[in-house]
Amino acid sequence: MHKNLLDYINRHTTSPLTKEEEALIVATFQHKKLRKKQYFLQEGNVCKYGGFIVKGAMRQYSVDDKGVEHIVQLFIENWWASDRESAIMLTPSKYNIEAWEDTELLIITRAEMLDLVEKIPAIAQMTRIMDERSFIASQRRINSTISNTAEQRYAEFAANHPQFIQRFPQHHIASFLGITKETLSRIRKQSMK
Amino acid sequence: MHKNLLDYINRHTTSPLTKEEEALIVATFQHKKLRKKQYFLQEGNVCKYGGFIVKGAMRQYSVDDKGVEHIVQLFIENWWASDRESAIMLTPSKYNIEAWEDTELLIITRAEMLDLVEKIPAIAQMTRIMDERSFIASQRRINSTISNTAEQRYAEFAANHPQFIQRFPQHHIASFLGITKETLSRIRKQSMK
Repeated sequence: MHKNLLDYINRHTTSPLTKEEEALIVATFQHKKLRKKQYFLQEGNVCKYGGFIVKGAMRQYSVDDKGVEHIVQLFIENWWASDRESAIMLTPSKYNIEAWEDTELLIITRAEMLDLVEKIPAIAQMTRIMDERSFIASQRRINSTISNTAEQRYAEFAANHPQFIQRFPQHHIASFLGITKETLSRIRKQSMK
Repeated sequence: MHKNLLDYINRHTTSPLTKEEEALIVATFQHKKLRKKQYFLQEGNVCKYGGFIVKGAMRQYSVDDKGVEHIVQLFIENWWASDRESAIMLTPSKYNIEAWEDTELLIITRAEMLDLVEKIPAIAQMTRIMDERSFIASQRRINSTISNTAEQRYAEFAANHPQFIQRFPQHHIASFLGITKETLSRIRKQSMK
């Protein structure tokens, strides 16, 4: 169960984990199972846990004044799910994080994670790399959203995340890309020609 | 000149800088001046330096296939300017960073910054906080872009960044928000009523 996580950490560091460090990680992360449609986080709650996804798929979304859902993030195996704004600021979350398939996670509180960052160099390095990558991904997404056409955004997304296209329904992908279902459907038909 | 930077670091840490650490920081960051319209970074170059803005204002933008500029970021005093994707991945930048006012910066290479992160706890803490905040800001911006109307986006931006509204022209603000000049102009007229 924890093996995927330990492998993930070792892939993101130049200081491989010692046996003692591995034992501390295994002791700290707790196992959590969610069935499809169960919530990892609900709007209005403070996000207490971050989760490393061992198996499954989840989506993070907000709901606007008119009741329309807007997907801000999609997750599958080897992704970390949390609302960092809420976890860091201790404010009620604006988001829901829902299991879209039966999902297994390894969860950790922010305080526990900061403790591991202090004690384990590999975790410090991994979190730095993750933070950098998330920031780069966010910048790319912002740039793509303000500069690219719907066609370009879909093509880029499909090229970078082929698995997401297979595992999430079209209306989730459309919402994530900020385009209508109808536009996405038209783009997909054209790209299949 | 370096005082603003030292103050900034001390405001973002619980382990204030020692005299030795301050001396190392002053020795590492170089002073750079740009006149209005000069470039800090040009598209196609690898971003070698990150810069802490002591005085002035800058904008970061990409240019699409049709020659249209898209502003991804605006900066003023006490902001850090760089293209982190390019600096981290060593890839040619997709962005230009241009001085919009006469600007003074303190610049540092990524290797030098990583060295300071190793040696100075305050810098390690500050960069962690900065990374978290940038990530939160990016998430908010993505959520706002896909969920909010142009009116809501402008109102949020004006409330959070009143100085930006005064120092950048309307067409920059419009580009940053991903709306047309005409829409922004209409929104501003309405909000003044």
